[in-house]
Amino acid sequence: MTRLPLALTMGDPAGIGPEITAGAWRTLRDEEAVFAWLGDPACLPSSLPVKEIETIEQAPSVFRDALPVVPLGLAAPVTVGEPDSANGQTVIDSIARAVGLVKAGVAGGVVTNPISKAVLRRAGFPHPGHTEFLAELCDVPGREVMMLASPMLRVVPVTIHVSLREALETLTEDMIVETGLTTALSLQRDFGNTRPRLAVAGLNPHAGEDGMMGREEIDMIIPAIERLRDKGIDVIGPMPPDTMFTETARQKYDAALCMYHDQALIPIKTLDMAHGVNVTLGLPIVRTSPDHGTAFDIAGRGIAEATSLVAALRLASVLSENRLNYKGGLLS
Amino acid sequence: MTRLPLALTMGDPAGIGPEITAGAWRTLRDEEAVFAWLGDPACLPSSLPVKEIETIEQAPSVFRDALPVVPLGLAAPVTVGEPDSANGQTVIDSIARAVGLVKAGVAGGVVTNPISKAVLRRAGFPHPGHTEFLAELCDVPGREVMMLASPMLRVVPVTIHVSLREALETLTEDMIVETGLTTALSLQRDFGNTRPRLAVAGLNPHAGEDGMMGREEIDMIIPAIERLRDKGIDVIGPMPPDTMFTETARQKYDAALCMYHDQALIPIKTLDMAHGVNVTLGLPIVRTSPDHGTAFDIAGRGIAEATSLVAALRLASVLSENRLNYKGGLLS
Repeated sequence: MTRLPLALTMGDPAGIGPEITAGAWRTLRDEEAVFAWLGDPACLPSSLPVKEIETIEQAPSVFRDALPVVPLGLAAPVTVGEPDSANGQTVIDSIARAVGLVKAGVAGGVVTNPISKAVLRRAGFPHPGHTEFLAELCDVPGREVMMLASPMLRVVPVTIHVSLREALETLTEDMIVETGLTTALSLQRDFGNTRPRLAVAGLNPHAGEDGMMGREEIDMIIPAIERLRDKGIDVIGPMPPDTMFTETARQKYDAALCMYHDQALIPIKTLDMAHGVNVTLGLPIVRTSPDHGTAFDIAGRGIAEATSLVAALRLASVLSENRLNYKGGLLS
Repeated sequence: MTRLPLALTMGDPAGIGPEITAGAWRTLRDEEAVFAWLGDPACLPSSLPVKEIETIEQAPSVFRDALPVVPLGLAAPVTVGEPDSANGQTVIDSIARAVGLVKAGVAGGVVTNPISKAVLRRAGFPHPGHTEFLAELCDVPGREVMMLASPMLRVVPVTIHVSLREALETLTEDMIVETGLTTALSLQRDFGNTRPRLAVAGLNPHAGEDGMMGREEIDMIIPAIERLRDKGIDVIGPMPPDTMFTETARQKYDAALCMYHDQALIPIKTLDMAHGVNVTLGLPIVRTSPDHGTAFDIAGRGIAEATSLVAALRLASVLSENRLNYKGGLLS
């Protein structure tokens, strides 16, 4: 079946969102990853052909000739590079509107432009970030799982934005199992891995070397792996963290479950900084985003790269098509 | 001046040491990295041209035509793949002999073939590993610092073979400063970086984000960086660990100081598994080793790659020449 258009949020209008949106449309206008932008057309580059649309269903017929825009008015004029919390509500509305379109079945997935948590906090936004807000809009708070995906590697950190000390203190066997189940389901349903293969990282150097350098592998990670295997998932591990991301090792799995933020993010960013895409698993909708921030410091100078946003749009388009065609499977 | 020959230790004779030594000689026989092997010639591949020598000074005249061997007799016959602690003493003697040759000024550096700690422990070897034994032979116990060096990246973990939890508990500002000073001196004296540039990693995600995700950067790492700068060293950091190993970021420093084992080893092994060389800093002698173990499981099957040993020999040769020519500098 034909792919549904994607809903691309505005993001912070004073950041690089408008210009990378323009760049992404130029790159993708002849491809299948059709999208509409939900924002204020006044903040787009004046050289960009834009077509305001009333409903997102009109996006495919417009897309080759102009960026389809579902217009949302901003409260205050935008000064590039200088975020204004007066515009925070429209930034938030854009996200909520995008989720609504996917839930209504007229958009294939949500792709989010970068927001500034600090700016939105001043506008009364109570969530730690995009992802938690999306989980709440989808009525599944706490179920969200972060994946970083690039052409060479997919990683899923089990603990995320906490200090390393807190990661050690909060990691549990149940968290590993739940994150592993969410990841395996998404690999099967969204990424098309009929029989998903997970690799689970050890926490300690050499995966603890039989308890010589830490017991978390024995006490927590191996039991979690056994529970995932009991669910019929193909799992290897606990793998020594330092050798599990080599080219040879990466052939053995479809996604790596990592115990803490940098164990996941060091290898993927070291291998390929430009093409990493943030994918939120565990939601009833498809959601991706570029793997960078608002970049207020370079906004408006024409040097921001749309590479990661392009990758996020292409991936969301594929994921949403796979999900539409999913017939169920081992894990559903 | 002419480079001195290197002293290559035997390593465990039942592992891949003998065959990668043969492979390294075949690769290097026409190069400047001349070396002699200190071991029992009976365990070398029979196809290899070997020349027993009485003193290592004879190695250069022999090297093009045969592997120069300073003979050391083993106590028991060798069965490939089956280590025998009866031969442990000769393995240890080979290491001590190599250090003695460098201290006597007739060898340029020590390159070690892999040993098995478990086998040597049964032979009464009281040290945790090679490196600690070498530091003791050099009368500088506790001063040893481990660097992993590849053509793309050099990393130095401040804490090494301990659990992640213990790494967090034992890391101190003083350790970071001392490891940084040792690294900077070695970069200048051995690696030829006239004005060494260090990058210091944060411990926490995003380097703690101003204390939002952990305080170690504020309490320990930033003060350590300031002390290193006070010594005249060019230091950047604390750097967000996930973005500091990208191609662009790597141009900004000569070595990265990392807070724990996998923060250092994940990026270097992910980028280049084959050419990593282990370099021991903080010793009065040059010492390198290949970045792999004895590989008893594949020994004798002709499939072991000499790549890392070749890289270790080439690097030791360059480091020893630089050290001989070193005229002192900022840090000496």
